[in-house]
Amino acid sequence: MSAPTGTAAPVRPGATAPHPRLSVNQATIKYATLPEALDTVRRAGVGAIGTWREPVAELGLADAVRRVADSGLRVSSHCRGGFFTLPEGTARQRALDDNRRAIDETAALSAAGAAGSAPVLVLVAGGLPAGSRDLTGARSRVADALAALVPHALDTGVQLAVEPLHPMYAADRAVVSTLAQALDLAAPFPAAAVGVVVDTFHVWWDPALAASIARAGAARRIASYQVCDWTTPIAADPLLSRGYPGDGHVDFGPVTDAVVDAGYSGDVEVELFNQAIWDTPPADVVARVVASFAEAVPLPR
Amino acid sequence: MSAPTGTAAPVRPGATAPHPRLSVNQATIKYATLPEALDTVRRAGVGAIGTWREPVAELGLADAVRRVADSGLRVSSHCRGGFFTLPEGTARQRALDDNRRAIDETAALSAAGAAGSAPVLVLVAGGLPAGSRDLTGARSRVADALAALVPHALDTGVQLAVEPLHPMYAADRAVVSTLAQALDLAAPFPAAAVGVVVDTFHVWWDPALAASIARAGAARRIASYQVCDWTTPIAADPLLSRGYPGDGHVDFGPVTDAVVDAGYSGDVEVELFNQAIWDTPPADVVARVVASFAEAVPLPR
Repeated sequence: MSAPTGTAAPVRPGATAPHPRLSVNQATIKYATLPEALDTVRRAGVGAIGTWREPVAELGLADAVRRVADSGLRVSSHCRGGFFTLPEGTARQRALDDNRRAIDETAALSAAGAAGSAPVLVLVAGGLPAGSRDLTGARSRVADALAALVPHALDTGVQLAVEPLHPMYAADRAVVSTLAQALDLAAPFPAAAVGVVVDTFHVWWDPALAASIARAGAARRIASYQVCDWTTPIAADPLLSRGYPGDGHVDFGPVTDAVVDAGYSGDVEVELFNQAIWDTPPADVVARVVASFAEAVPLPR
Repeated sequence: MSAPTGTAAPVRPGATAPHPRLSVNQATIKYATLPEALDTVRRAGVGAIGTWREPVAELGLADAVRRVADSGLRVSSHCRGGFFTLPEGTARQRALDDNRRAIDETAALSAAGAAGSAPVLVLVAGGLPAGSRDLTGARSRVADALAALVPHALDTGVQLAVEPLHPMYAADRAVVSTLAQALDLAAPFPAAAVGVVVDTFHVWWDPALAASIARAGAARRIASYQVCDWTTPIAADPLLSRGYPGDGHVDFGPVTDAVVDAGYSGDVEVELFNQAIWDTPPADVVARVVASFAEAVPLPR
């Protein structure tokens, strides 16, 4: 299966028309440059993309902004900032400064995107610092980092989006593991400045998920909804153990209903970290994303 | 390092005296028969063992009971029942009948153990049935199974202990993932009939852990406390990704303090599923368990 090579026909005859709220997160086609990713997504008839910092940096922000504007795509989020658990010191200050740059990038890319773009910067909390077992301390430093960044977020109109990661990453990637915890971290700040990400891969197992999504909706905190399946067995590298919607164990109906009922009306990203997917031609991946989303994710059109 | 070969000296000169509340779960020395396990644990000067059904079945219950009585050891728990998520049908009925037999075994082994033995049957909920994505249904069948077993548990004086497993096992092993969820499942029943297991490997990451342990203590629901470390990277088989206390990222201080403050005064098991540990001579493993427990788990003597 290959994507159309012309630019006039965004959807092949016979193919499912992409859902109008579908967004392809660029991590799903990790080896594409930003221009390649924008082109692949646009040609597939998908309306939005979630961008990543590395491909933007590779191109330079000014050029990236121009390419995004030319693409006509919405930008649904920018990934990613965070890594907030380092103790006080120059490395932490550098991380915070880098997050301020990420906020500026988010504002610029979102402004360049088509109407409906979301100025959302996805944040991954960071794991335990090397040699530390102090979860409580690490978590309090995440809260401190948010407090330090909120003024710049408000100044630039960017919403910081705290993403709880699956508990299997608590030690080495993210000390924020549940949506309830992310909401607690967001609570001291205006919703315009701090929201949360609901990524099915990370939160599908949570017995408190429905309650937490409702709480997030009531507080207007849902900044991003990402769909990705949980497949078994877990991959040898657990970071890459993600599947197309429908390939695993997640029931996307109840989660999607809860997110819709909570008032989220933005784009819905498919973000897949998976070596086999990365080794597939990007146009084929995007076609499969479109089809699997249509089949497995009952989002009203 | 090898264990003493005589029976008179339970602790080698210079070795750490085992903590009086330490128990070795037999899964930690998986390839030992029950007689070998009892002997290895006793010779190391450890006072208690957590038994498993398979080695008991291999020997026959009557012989197992006699061996346990002869060992002078306490039995801290019996592993394991559960696997409650099957839909109505003969397979489910067989599973429930098998759990009733496991309850009987627990009562017999506990009665044969030394004073302070705990008639506790550890339960693993079970994962999603093949082809199902219905977490809610699976969880409700766990509740139904508990209701079906509670009368027999009360008749025999056995406490069913619901063990929340790490969320990375939610699809294929246990749809009960947090201590709060286990407590919700236990709540309709008397604490004498249904308690919970606190296993650090499974729950260490939980931002609600301290609150849930306090809740469990107030309800007198802590049936077992198991210590095991979370190591990274996650093993190729995630079921076997467990380390000796101190080898990973868990801070055993706050969890142990919370369990003690919650009023738990029973034995504390070390349960390690780890192929490298299983490939080590059992006496060496038990010596390492004794030493790592003394170093990493600040349980008052």
